[in-house]
Amino acid sequence: MAEQSIKRVPVVKVKDIENAETTDALAIEEPLEIRLEYGPANDRQVKNVSVTMRTPGHDAELATGFLFTEGIVKNSEDILATDHFFIACAENKENVIQVSLKEGVIPHLQNSDRNFYTTSSCGVCGKGSINAIRTVSAFVKPAVDNQTITSELLYQLPDKLRQHQQVFADTGGLHASALFSLGGELLLSREDVGRHNALDKLIGAALSKNWLPLNQCVLLLSGRASFELVQKAAMAGIRIIASVGAPSSLAVELAEEFGITLAGFLRDKRFNIYTAAHRIILPVYESSY
Amino acid sequence: MAEQSIKRVPVVKVKDIENAETTDALAIEEPLEIRLEYGPANDRQVKNVSVTMRTPGHDAELATGFLFTEGIVKNSEDILATDHFFIACAENKENVIQVSLKEGVIPHLQNSDRNFYTTSSCGVCGKGSINAIRTVSAFVKPAVDNQTITSELLYQLPDKLRQHQQVFADTGGLHASALFSLGGELLLSREDVGRHNALDKLIGAALSKNWLPLNQCVLLLSGRASFELVQKAAMAGIRIIASVGAPSSLAVELAEEFGITLAGFLRDKRFNIYTAAHRIILPVYESSY
Repeated sequence: MAEQSIKRVPVVKVKDIENAETTDALAIEEPLEIRLEYGPANDRQVKNVSVTMRTPGHDAELATGFLFTEGIVKNSEDILATDHFFIACAENKENVIQVSLKEGVIPHLQNSDRNFYTTSSCGVCGKGSINAIRTVSAFVKPAVDNQTITSELLYQLPDKLRQHQQVFADTGGLHASALFSLGGELLLSREDVGRHNALDKLIGAALSKNWLPLNQCVLLLSGRASFELVQKAAMAGIRIIASVGAPSSLAVELAEEFGITLAGFLRDKRFNIYTAAHRIILPVYESSY
Repeated sequence: MAEQSIKRVPVVKVKDIENAETTDALAIEEPLEIRLEYGPANDRQVKNVSVTMRTPGHDAELATGFLFTEGIVKNSEDILATDHFFIACAENKENVIQVSLKEGVIPHLQNSDRNFYTTSSCGVCGKGSINAIRTVSAFVKPAVDNQTITSELLYQLPDKLRQHQQVFADTGGLHASALFSLGGELLLSREDVGRHNALDKLIGAALSKNWLPLNQCVLLLSGRASFELVQKAAMAGIRIIASVGAPSSLAVELAEEFGITLAGFLRDKRFNIYTAAHRIILPVYESSY
């Protein structure tokens, strides 16, 4: 992935009163059109469902992850194939990906015209956005609720991710999402200029491995936790989310509503638990500080 | 603004082996629907042009800035009024804003169905996205090109912004965009959970003050510089952009194409200049390091 994710460009590096002409590695940002092909054999239709600015690489996972977390496609078995298309004027870049559904599979395209928070009966109140997810997700009511992780293991996750986040180290320009086991083992990570794309790629990859629901995993987000990211995690059945950055108000409301554990500001042997704190095992020693 | 931008929630703060129950301030994230009202007096129409997840505050500026940077409305004089609507189920939150155009003003709604990069003839190649902006922006060919700023002044901008970025200081959860004079004076800043919203609010505010084109200003971005942010800046006639974070490949291509100066990684008396370096005056002393 690293190869196609980076572009080297000339740059003037300025430091205090010195400067030098050199080159610098940038994270690549390019548009990707996601197309969906579906219908009976004698009447296949193709619909453009989204265009996103993404970092090339893992496009098939991005497309299937997006279709799943937006509720448009419900099962990985519904997908027949994913194919890249070249556009001549785009310097032969692979900027179109088509996901073909099996015959007889009907995509839930009412979910595709806009994002979740506008498909609910009242898209502009937070409660409406949250209720929309309840009706669409298969995994929001988990059968088992026995997942725990210790604070000691949580502290280690950002470093473990950083060791694997090569493109970020090179460019400083990529967001990452990663899945860890409850024992703190890094299972899978994905990077992208768009934080929602990094998570879609991760969930798309997990989908292709038949890992869903991801209720025995911890999701680590390299940046902030927004409503959109918690929504995607909820769709995949994730029960524990830790973010290096701050959560937003609606992200916390959504996590609360679905009983998802949400920790934020995970860095330097610190974090804050916003919801469902019972899944994080803390040392017995307690004090207020 | 700070009041409505923050929500206090209970939190368990964990630090090393200690933990304590307390409260924490979160950046508020809520949906905002932007509606456009237009047409002759006897046949007014209302169209929902966008729903964005934003931090409440400066909603009118966000809406007008969005309509302008997306090329839907070309002049601030075309706007008759902006009005908030309450939605009963949303706990009386002001999550709908309607922008009314004067009679006879025709909005460029072909630009509204999707973002810029999908309205061009070929939306999925970077070049197509860039060309789309060329046809829509009034300010991409500036009459004067004599703007400069010294590296010494650039170094000071992030600190100056931070001193004004109160909500971020409280929550760690907001992006900021700010306009500085070429003499390094902070003119205007806006914050939001979404970086594109922070910039739309800033440009909307500048629009209402009749400041456009903003070719005598430096734009400072608190995070990374993506294609979308450089596109919005180009629409407003901005000639110098400095970001605290990394730029993406397509952001640099767009800046290059329009002769915009783009500096990144502006922190700790350092930055990198990616394009149009002539507008940043460097000390005469040079060395390679």
